[in-house]
Amino acid sequence: MTHQRYRLIIEYNGTDYAGWQRQDHDGLPTIQGEIEKAIKAFSGQTATLHASGRTDSGVHAYGQVAHVDLAPLKKPMDPFEIVKAINAHLRPQPISILKAEPVSDEFHARFTAKNKLYVYRVLNRPSFPAIEQDRVWHVKKPLNALAMHAAAQGLLGHHDFTTFRDSQCQAKHPMRTLDRLDVSTHIYDPAGGMEIRIEAEAQSFLHHMVRNLVGTLSLVGEGKWQPEDVRSALQAKDRTKGGPTAPAAGLYLQRVDYDE
Amino acid sequence: MTHQRYRLIIEYNGTDYAGWQRQDHDGLPTIQGEIEKAIKAFSGQTATLHASGRTDSGVHAYGQVAHVDLAPLKKPMDPFEIVKAINAHLRPQPISILKAEPVSDEFHARFTAKNKLYVYRVLNRPSFPAIEQDRVWHVKKPLNALAMHAAAQGLLGHHDFTTFRDSQCQAKHPMRTLDRLDVSTHIYDPAGGMEIRIEAEAQSFLHHMVRNLVGTLSLVGEGKWQPEDVRSALQAKDRTKGGPTAPAAGLYLQRVDYDE
Repeated sequence: MTHQRYRLIIEYNGTDYAGWQRQDHDGLPTIQGEIEKAIKAFSGQTATLHASGRTDSGVHAYGQVAHVDLAPLKKPMDPFEIVKAINAHLRPQPISILKAEPVSDEFHARFTAKNKLYVYRVLNRPSFPAIEQDRVWHVKKPLNALAMHAAAQGLLGHHDFTTFRDSQCQAKHPMRTLDRLDVSTHIYDPAGGMEIRIEAEAQSFLHHMVRNLVGTLSLVGEGKWQPEDVRSALQAKDRTKGGPTAPAAGLYLQRVDYDE
Repeated sequence: MTHQRYRLIIEYNGTDYAGWQRQDHDGLPTIQGEIEKAIKAFSGQTATLHASGRTDSGVHAYGQVAHVDLAPLKKPMDPFEIVKAINAHLRPQPISILKAEPVSDEFHARFTAKNKLYVYRVLNRPSFPAIEQDRVWHVKKPLNALAMHAAAQGLLGHHDFTTFRDSQCQAKHPMRTLDRLDVSTHIYDPAGGMEIRIEAEAQSFLHHMVRNLVGTLSLVGEGKWQPEDVRSALQAKDRTKGGPTAPAAGLYLQRVDYDE
């Protein structure tokens, strides 16, 4: 056997990184680059990580999935020892490998993914976040989450999502199937602050799609748009007809699912 | 009127502070000291904050309550403007005033408090926390939360809590009434990591009491102690018979309640 493929589940705080993807020019470190360095440090191998998808600078993950092929290790290690070895070299950076599992070469973190769950967190209150700076989008004006949820339901299904796609998006086509877009509210603090959480599920997303959906729904939450306006924006297939891009800080790649 | 008393609700990340209480010697900044400086900066007044209780270095709050007396302001401000003025001077520190309310001089943040809720968060999984470093206690070995909850129930009621009281505690006596001590588990990440949350309610607590209770319950969670051992430790009224003090990072003062 020339190599063993591993599936890794990865948690990270994206605030101080230039996003997932390794960059060959100088600049902020990247999540991919730092994990590849840690793999090199414990195994001596120059391995390439393949993620379920890139995340942008400032976006977080509780469950990014990537695969990597490792040649036989000089000293055999079980998956749990591999996790510990990579993490030992990552510390104290805010990147943590949660699990490694041997998988067949049929597995591909991006191409065999069946479902992704993104969570977007809005802190909706007048006062700025003391504990979760960089990890929520702080919106001071009260948002109507029920209206946002109603508007979100008009986006479900198989559509051309050009309106919610970044102009730099490299996907071959703008068709995606949005399976779930739920907006819920949660008590955040004892002074009346609310967290509005948007959960989006699909097999795959376009570049900035979740942040553009959230930015557009926030217009509904503020009362500037009616739910029908969101549907019209979708039908326009024109990015300039959509709402703003919500900040990266509120976005979390929560989970990626595969057939087992 | 010589002054108006205000009740403040305050959120903070305690990691980089020497705790709540102002210190007159040099050292790390304190939460109280920083808020008093911000009040001085916007009002010109040297006012003293009185909190519901001190929190130790590294302990966080979503709902600390403090009162402060302000002399008439040169330009009258409503409570929301006062919140904004203090916060403008606190930024970008991780301390945020969530609310200010005028109250009568009968109100005292400490002496009229009817109930306090502390939440303690344990991240229970092998891999270190990437997103919530400094905000949870990371315990690698699996804990049995059901056994911890069962043991906790034996501590409820009016008792001498000397076993769970720091040797430096300045309270006049060790009697307290513990009204609630619930242990619950929550899915934390998609790789099987669990959060164990301990919620403790009482009118007041002794110094380090919640952290000592949590440290002791963790021995039950690890299987080193049986639930009955916790009850015996309580009855010993001897700090050396209790478990270790859990780290400050996992502790949050969630809420303080008053009669209205």
